[in-house]
Amino acid sequence: MKLLVKVMDIASPGVLLHQTDAGTIGVLEGDRVRVFNEASGESATALVSITSSVLAPGTIGIYRKTNGRLGFAEGSTAEVRDAERLASIDAIKKKMDGGRLTQEEILGIVKDTVAENLSPVEMTAFVTASYIHGLDMDEVEHLTRSMVETGDRIQFATHPIVDKHSIGGVPGNKISLIVIPVIAASGLRIPKTSSRAITGAGGTADLMEVLAPVEFSSEEVKRMTEKVGGVIVWGGSTNIAPADDRFIMVEYPFRIDATGQMLASVMAKKSAVGADLAVIDIPVGAGTKVLTVQDGRRLASQFMELGERMKIHVECALTYGESPVGHAIGPNLEVHEALVLLEGAQVPGSLLQKSLALSGIALEMAGKAARGQGYAMAESLLRNGKALEKLRQIIEIQGGDREVKAEDIVPGEHRFVVNAPLDGYVVELNNRALITVARAAGAPHDRGAGLLIHAKKGAKVKQGEPIITIYAERSWRLQKAVEIGRQLMPILVEGMLLGRISPVHWI
Amino acid sequence: MKLLVKVMDIASPGVLLHQTDAGTIGVLEGDRVRVFNEASGESATALVSITSSVLAPGTIGIYRKTNGRLGFAEGSTAEVRDAERLASIDAIKKKMDGGRLTQEEILGIVKDTVAENLSPVEMTAFVTASYIHGLDMDEVEHLTRSMVETGDRIQFATHPIVDKHSIGGVPGNKISLIVIPVIAASGLRIPKTSSRAITGAGGTADLMEVLAPVEFSSEEVKRMTEKVGGVIVWGGSTNIAPADDRFIMVEYPFRIDATGQMLASVMAKKSAVGADLAVIDIPVGAGTKVLTVQDGRRLASQFMELGERMKIHVECALTYGESPVGHAIGPNLEVHEALVLLEGAQVPGSLLQKSLALSGIALEMAGKAARGQGYAMAESLLRNGKALEKLRQIIEIQGGDREVKAEDIVPGEHRFVVNAPLDGYVVELNNRALITVARAAGAPHDRGAGLLIHAKKGAKVKQGEPIITIYAERSWRLQKAVEIGRQLMPILVEGMLLGRISPVHWI
Repeated sequence: MKLLVKVMDIASPGVLLHQTDAGTIGVLEGDRVRVFNEASGESATALVSITSSVLAPGTIGIYRKTNGRLGFAEGSTAEVRDAERLASIDAIKKKMDGGRLTQEEILGIVKDTVAENLSPVEMTAFVTASYIHGLDMDEVEHLTRSMVETGDRIQFATHPIVDKHSIGGVPGNKISLIVIPVIAASGLRIPKTSSRAITGAGGTADLMEVLAPVEFSSEEVKRMTEKVGGVIVWGGSTNIAPADDRFIMVEYPFRIDATGQMLASVMAKKSAVGADLAVIDIPVGAGTKVLTVQDGRRLASQFMELGERMKIHVECALTYGESPVGHAIGPNLEVHEALVLLEGAQVPGSLLQKSLALSGIALEMAGKAARGQGYAMAESLLRNGKALEKLRQIIEIQGGDREVKAEDIVPGEHRFVVNAPLDGYVVELNNRALITVARAAGAPHDRGAGLLIHAKKGAKVKQGEPIITIYAERSWRLQKAVEIGRQLMPILVEGMLLGRISPVHWI
Repeated sequence: MKLLVKVMDIASPGVLLHQTDAGTIGVLEGDRVRVFNEASGESATALVSITSSVLAPGTIGIYRKTNGRLGFAEGSTAEVRDAERLASIDAIKKKMDGGRLTQEEILGIVKDTVAENLSPVEMTAFVTASYIHGLDMDEVEHLTRSMVETGDRIQFATHPIVDKHSIGGVPGNKISLIVIPVIAASGLRIPKTSSRAITGAGGTADLMEVLAPVEFSSEEVKRMTEKVGGVIVWGGSTNIAPADDRFIMVEYPFRIDATGQMLASVMAKKSAVGADLAVIDIPVGAGTKVLTVQDGRRLASQFMELGERMKIHVECALTYGESPVGHAIGPNLEVHEALVLLEGAQVPGSLLQKSLALSGIALEMAGKAARGQGYAMAESLLRNGKALEKLRQIIEIQGGDREVKAEDIVPGEHRFVVNAPLDGYVVELNNRALITVARAAGAPHDRGAGLLIHAKKGAKVKQGEPIITIYAERSWRLQKAVEIGRQLMPILVEGMLLGRISPVHWI
């Protein structure tokens, strides 16, 4: 039927129909119509919302994104008909019923996801059904390839291309700021696309943004990597595997990270940047995504099998994830800690060891170091200042200040110190609670917000000694973080008197 | 933080934030904020959508429904903070992981569903997880009670109150137009709330609307039932078990009807209208929702168990569902067929038998007829004109014309006759395909659209004899229905030559 066009300033794609017109066309909320602009010859399929009041009968509201394809002027006339059922919906239903999806079905779902043809209801059903029934390795491979195909791809002229990924879940994991420069300093190429924090206190992209811009196209990623050997950018701006962001949006409310989708998401990004080899960091332990070493081994073997199918050489490192990496959580605090280490301070501990171990694996895989010699080579690239110089080149080419120093990066001015309630040992640091407190303080949005942990698990403390400092940029945020810390008690100290475990009081 | 209010004419509840402000508050798309109107003292929790262009930073878009609670004037100032995580989301996650939900958890989900606190993503995850993992009888009982509690309830002073329900899936099932008058004519009370077609060619409410208005409050349902013994209204306008409509919206794209949700939906409506006894029609066979008699028995025993828990006496009738009930599909055609029968025409066949059988069961359950005598009593109420007089009273009290006759109800003027391609027998009538053709012709929206089946399954036909007539109110609809019929071939005729099965040609 013919309807008068009203262009509506709503960001999502779709159209709005009056319920009388929807009845005439024969569609319900959630159905699709095909809209024709007979003047321009353009047509598009769009999801239908229905109103009985926002529009008058005889009028169709066309949302901005949909009108981008149709090009209607306000007040022109559209021809509107009901559209055929999307094949993807039948494929999603098949997965809900426990079926295995074919390559074609998965490609269809991913294409419709990227084109925003699927409604939130339909996408959620796919993600939920995949989470509950799982995806087998064939399905994971199809999903990976479909995610690669529906986005940008980088092809380098020379090889090997190295990549690195951490599956996350452990706070303070700023190792990419060290690993990428070390690997690039060895002469290898590593075009690292990373994420912003969704549920965490700071993703690698949030951290790097303290030092330089991180939003680049995939063309720019390629050019910069060819010039200086590496980059650290935000994957969200590259159009690499764009389906992933939409799947994550659905997983977000439930804090799930379905294995099949996670495997596909990680490996699609590696494949799309042209990686030949990848080292995957799998933090293991209570408070992480992988609870036991057995689970970690299983996940590692899945990553390696998928790598083989995608022609990427994968090795995995199971790492200790029960307490934060290093001492800092939150963008500025973490960047400061990484720069201190790159500038040559003799800071022993988890951050140094983990960074060198992962760098070493990559150097060995790429043939830069003999088996067993990677760690030492990584250490020497760190000690001789080449890694710091490489980070400066990366900062510079991304548009930051190459002369930046650790002392320039300062935390928020509002601070609260938590002291040990008694003489004893730190027996627990709860990852999830630490992240929640850091987020309450404002991380990652407020770059200066976060936590500094003075006494890590196993440390001996005396009554009244500081064990954590909370930093915030705004005083009300600090107050809120302190309140939440009081409820969650992210740190426990045990006294000499065996068996007495005291919560730390946040007075 | 303080933001300038812009009231937005969007029908769903929620708020729109600029991404900069969302970052400052610490929320992402799909999170919730608490909005305070400090002038009026009102506050509300709302789902967040995020834009980088529709609004300027410093401004919050408040959707009409949400502002209904907050009462902001355009240009006033709102205080906006991040809100706590809904407990319902943890309960939904538990179901995704295969857990059993408690009464409290289910009540929370249903309350948040009715209040529109849950986003489409969250509701879909609940419906999908319940579909995949199933709900056990305790969960179904909790869901039923929660759906009753969160809506209107009718309490009658005198008892018993009777109800009737068909789980659907078979086209042409206009029996409520006969069963309700027959039962009410016996002196029993039957406040029938029915549905409009979602995927079908005409729900009972669509049919009744040909004769009288069907939109009433639950108060009016009570008053009218007390006066004339029965009503046939649309459940959607009563606020009885309002959660159901929202769950169905999610199931709609996938054409699913999850058993647990369906049991709860049916029985919540029976409980909310105060029914003491209910007869449930379960059509069985290929092309219906219940494929085998075994499946039908299992479903019947679930209905009876749930009835016992809800203190409603339930009996079920497994009915033949492999071909349409009667000969007509589509509102006017079905109403005409039912009126012809009530007016006393001697039309043998499935419509008469099914209507009397179901009426008879209810009459026996209520003690109006002795065991085994219900069918005969129903038949006499039909034959002696009391059922017709009762329907007229129902039509009148609902605001229709009590003098209406079968001949007044005419089908659409555009017609297409499909003839038998050879001498033989009708060997297949495909329910789903018949419905699709009737919908393509315009049913249920166009009341005159639909199908009349001249030769049902098993009928002997001669080449060139009409086997189906398609009716439409608009010629382009008729054309489309004919095209779709050509593709779907809803009827097959087999010749005398054994084994030769011919599709009917839609020339």
